[in-house]
Amino acid sequence: MALIVQKYGGSSVADAASIKRVAKRIVDTRRAGHDVVVAVSAMGDTTDELLDLAHQVAPIPAPRELDMLLSSGERISMALLAMTIHSMGFEARSFTGSQAGMITDSHHGSARIVDVTPVRVREALDEGAIVIVAGFQGFNRDTRDITTLGRGGSDTTAVALAAALNADVCEIYSDVDGIFTADPRVVPNARKLSTISSEEMLELAANGAKVLYIRAVEFARRHNVLIHARSTFSSNEGTYVLGEGQTLPHNLEGAAMEEPIVAGVATDLGQAKITVAGVPDVPGKAAEIFKIVAKSGANVDMIVQNVSAAATNRTDISFTVPKSDAAVALRALAADQAEVGFENLVHDDQIGKLSVVGAGMRVHSGVSATLFEALSTAGINIEMISTSEIRISVVLRADDIMVAAKAVHTAYGLDSETEAIVHAGTGR
Amino acid sequence: MALIVQKYGGSSVADAASIKRVAKRIVDTRRAGHDVVVAVSAMGDTTDELLDLAHQVAPIPAPRELDMLLSSGERISMALLAMTIHSMGFEARSFTGSQAGMITDSHHGSARIVDVTPVRVREALDEGAIVIVAGFQGFNRDTRDITTLGRGGSDTTAVALAAALNADVCEIYSDVDGIFTADPRVVPNARKLSTISSEEMLELAANGAKVLYIRAVEFARRHNVLIHARSTFSSNEGTYVLGEGQTLPHNLEGAAMEEPIVAGVATDLGQAKITVAGVPDVPGKAAEIFKIVAKSGANVDMIVQNVSAAATNRTDISFTVPKSDAAVALRALAADQAEVGFENLVHDDQIGKLSVVGAGMRVHSGVSATLFEALSTAGINIEMISTSEIRISVVLRADDIMVAAKAVHTAYGLDSETEAIVHAGTGR
Repeated sequence: MALIVQKYGGSSVADAASIKRVAKRIVDTRRAGHDVVVAVSAMGDTTDELLDLAHQVAPIPAPRELDMLLSSGERISMALLAMTIHSMGFEARSFTGSQAGMITDSHHGSARIVDVTPVRVREALDEGAIVIVAGFQGFNRDTRDITTLGRGGSDTTAVALAAALNADVCEIYSDVDGIFTADPRVVPNARKLSTISSEEMLELAANGAKVLYIRAVEFARRHNVLIHARSTFSSNEGTYVLGEGQTLPHNLEGAAMEEPIVAGVATDLGQAKITVAGVPDVPGKAAEIFKIVAKSGANVDMIVQNVSAAATNRTDISFTVPKSDAAVALRALAADQAEVGFENLVHDDQIGKLSVVGAGMRVHSGVSATLFEALSTAGINIEMISTSEIRISVVLRADDIMVAAKAVHTAYGLDSETEAIVHAGTGR
Repeated sequence: MALIVQKYGGSSVADAASIKRVAKRIVDTRRAGHDVVVAVSAMGDTTDELLDLAHQVAPIPAPRELDMLLSSGERISMALLAMTIHSMGFEARSFTGSQAGMITDSHHGSARIVDVTPVRVREALDEGAIVIVAGFQGFNRDTRDITTLGRGGSDTTAVALAAALNADVCEIYSDVDGIFTADPRVVPNARKLSTISSEEMLELAANGAKVLYIRAVEFARRHNVLIHARSTFSSNEGTYVLGEGQTLPHNLEGAAMEEPIVAGVATDLGQAKITVAGVPDVPGKAAEIFKIVAKSGANVDMIVQNVSAAATNRTDISFTVPKSDAAVALRALAADQAEVGFENLVHDDQIGKLSVVGAGMRVHSGVSATLFEALSTAGINIEMISTSEIRISVVLRADDIMVAAKAVHTAYGLDSETEAIVHAGTGR
């Protein structure tokens, strides 16, 4: 008998029929003899609808009240899920974030979990109940106010509960079968991975893969939680995300540990490139520029500086930011143009980023050569390059991303013989 | 400077525009220099929609989970209301039932308030904030579970808060201007009362008047809370409900205290009449019958026993119950027919009840004669009669109710010279 934490996203509980399907899945897990704790998101578009209402009454909703408002979404889904399970003859009990002991700091809208004290969850488990916990929400001890965790919050709730309860596994359900070597919508013959290391998963998630949230994976790695990413729509095994030194539970050893050089290819069309042109090539100018950008709140990803043109003693500095951050960064830079002394700003949102991730890069050479060769053969121009210990990323024209991803996927020998099935919806 | 508790029902906060209107009203009260605590219901049909969802997933929803589900409705409306006020430049803070210290027993779906410990409400008031409290919900200390108060719950929340905070007045807002001498939809020239005694209000509410809930009026009387029933749609003074020995605050003395013999006429089309015919006229039979009915859960209102027919030594016993209780009562009686020995059951749901209520009845004679004469002149037949110290009720044919109410209203001199304005909606 194991203790299993399961997380179901909004599209998995979008209506009464979906809730019944999820309830059946939970009950089946209980019937198999396991203790089950479930973290659940708000139904379908509930959160967006509540946000819309908030913006109808207040241009900038007070953060405390916005959290109070949004947290009602999971209360609805969790109560409905609990009563569904109850009506199937199983004891089920729902708990809000505060009832489940999800203690956070006081940053409304993006609170961080500081402690988990699941006393009531444990009591309910001891009494044989299936426990349903509201995802995405917590409670601050000092202000005694309700908080929300921000994007990916329900994944984090599930992993934090799994850690606090010392669960055997944390199953994150979505509408895809697991982690793939590439987004199947971009590379149709992407292959599902049986396992992936958490550091690879972090690099993939940070570079555009959308199955798991970085925050939840980080939390899992830090607290040694075994994540199993799998589909609500099938009973197939998904992908296990293994932390350092973590191995599969012995009943799962059948899922052979792969050690490929490259785990996957991630693509990201959500970035924009900003070029600060004609920057005086004197020490400290780059620092000046990125201090301005940081102050604007924009999140810089990649940076490239061209070689200075000898004649002018000026250089160009390019960087990428999320598309949604581009406007504030541009405004901040334009305001300080005279002081920094650059010539002009260029904004380009027709770019795409392609990243190749693999822990094997540490010990294998030639990994980057394969990437550059594949792109060159496909006739694709590289605009920027950046690398980490286990990742190589390139910025390309947005239009080239599909062709590039397929070429690179093939070049690293990742292609499967069949095409992956893509379900509708986003699974979040 | 006074402390004012205000209650707004679901139709007053049905959409963004309504919420803004209510927020303005609250802010106006604050601007006038008063401390304001607001109890708010769920938006429009939210509660019904949530109930519908519950019944889609579970035929008989688990009561604990149903309360968790329904309580989310007020969390939405209160957070929206608080952020609206906030965006108007006033500090506002919303509190759930448990945050506001609404301690109840553990009867999910119809919990009773056992204590109110509004520590956080007081703190917020001391800090100059407008306080918004979720109506209809509470919290049980032993189970640590969320409860709901049942029908009229938000009125009760408001009155209980007013009592605990020692508020100067509890304003119950709806879509009617106050308490009328009759339902203006039945008697068009009904008159708005400036004041009414709480005992008269209780009798009116118990006999069909729908502006205030009995429970809230009882609570107010017991805890000496001054209720002011008024309209969301006008700034007119409404009706003050005065408890025993309670007088209007001196700034309100302008509202002359009326002491009419009859305060109002209430009508109720929600009852059915059951006649148990051919009951053996021996001692204990009536007790036997009403024990059976009580056990069925049906709520008996009026009872009439005919004089026994000498030839058969049998009698008929008739009683009224809410229409929704008739089926269970009939089933229970039919099951025990042989044991009780009655001849047959007659079910009649085409009846109406008309009640005349007035504290003046205690000291004035001839009040009932006026009623019977008015009905007789109008050619209306009386089927049953019952009286309390300050009320006379008669059961009539449902079809006669409109004509009867108008005739009786005129006979007691209650008619106004103008017709009352009736707003759309129910105001609850």
